[in-house]
Amino acid sequence: MEPDHAQRIHVVTRILQANDRVAEENRKRFTSAHVRAINLISSPGAGKTSLLEATLSRLRGQKKAAVIVGDIATTRDAERIAPSGVPVVQIMTEAFGGSCHLEASTIRQALDQIELTGLDLLFIENVGNLVCPAEFDLGEQAKVAILSVTEGEDKPLKYPLAFRVADLVLLSKVDLVPHLRIDMDKLREHVRRVNPKARVIELSVETGAGMDDWMAWVMN
Amino acid sequence: MEPDHAQRIHVVTRILQANDRVAEENRKRFTSAHVRAINLISSPGAGKTSLLEATLSRLRGQKKAAVIVGDIATTRDAERIAPSGVPVVQIMTEAFGGSCHLEASTIRQALDQIELTGLDLLFIENVGNLVCPAEFDLGEQAKVAILSVTEGEDKPLKYPLAFRVADLVLLSKVDLVPHLRIDMDKLREHVRRVNPKARVIELSVETGAGMDDWMAWVMN
Repeated sequence: MEPDHAQRIHVVTRILQANDRVAEENRKRFTSAHVRAINLISSPGAGKTSLLEATLSRLRGQKKAAVIVGDIATTRDAERIAPSGVPVVQIMTEAFGGSCHLEASTIRQALDQIELTGLDLLFIENVGNLVCPAEFDLGEQAKVAILSVTEGEDKPLKYPLAFRVADLVLLSKVDLVPHLRIDMDKLREHVRRVNPKARVIELSVETGAGMDDWMAWVMN
Repeated sequence: MEPDHAQRIHVVTRILQANDRVAEENRKRFTSAHVRAINLISSPGAGKTSLLEATLSRLRGQKKAAVIVGDIATTRDAERIAPSGVPVVQIMTEAFGGSCHLEASTIRQALDQIELTGLDLLFIENVGNLVCPAEFDLGEQAKVAILSVTEGEDKPLKYPLAFRVADLVLLSKVDLVPHLRIDMDKLREHVRRVNPKARVIELSVETGAGMDDWMAWVMN
């Protein structure tokens, strides 16, 4: 055991406790403003931003949405979402030491720039990382874990926390299945093994498959 | 700023300093045993284990190799590599609080189970995460960043550190390019912008494209 080990665990525990307090404050603000906040968690490149682009376009005229985007560097995701016309706040975690996840306090800060009154939905696109974001409650009403089928059928077992805390699991890029060596039955079984309760939707933004089910879940 | 912020930065600095000390010890052990240690960093599902399976099969009878595999949970990667007959040590970081990366001290511990004398190559398959592993020196001689083309051409800009610290960048799964909307010229330019010095190899374990270049780099 390294000399810093006990101190580190102590600090991590305090950080998580402090995070949970702020998350609870965020949650109260969302509830009292009747906003449904949805936290999207996935590896880099699983298609979070593409999904948001498609989702915002379908929501137009039906629901009022806003987006908070977390990245380590660049404002590229916010720039992709901006044409949809909804309010977007880009958080660059490089300003917070290159953090590998969003925290409740970062969300609280972003909320200074978003008018919650009159809003229906707040999408939070977390930093692309299947590990750390799963540990931090942001005060959201629902967590969505997105796994691209290109990542392989073993990933729910190898990165269990993100799937265990998810209310909904999206299996994305299913249009690529014919070009991959992936056993979809095994993938579904692995998701169920880690989280028997989560709703699972198989989806492709390219072909539109699964988008109706996803939109119904979002608008629920 | 959260009350714990200053304390946290202090602890993180101490952790990184402690890590660098142990990394230097590991590096000395590798150098004196004439072992080339290669640290593989990528998102989940970029193909680290498949690449290792193909690499170990090509090395058979030419070079003596061993593998250290880091995962949060399961021994699946070690089980996939075991048939190649090389020594494999599986680190499950769940035992270290579900850590999102390998650290120098974890490697030092794994080295208790690997005989370095007579070994030519040590592959270290890091936890699938494009963020945190890039921050921790393990004492390796070379870092390899692997990006699957399915992740999109913007990733070197969005996750710059992993590419900045890499000696070699592998663009994997290039057999899928015809089925994706990806601009390969932009991807190459983004890699060069973040790290103008890194060698770049485009590779597919499925078709064998780029494997000769990769093997030449490994055996160098």
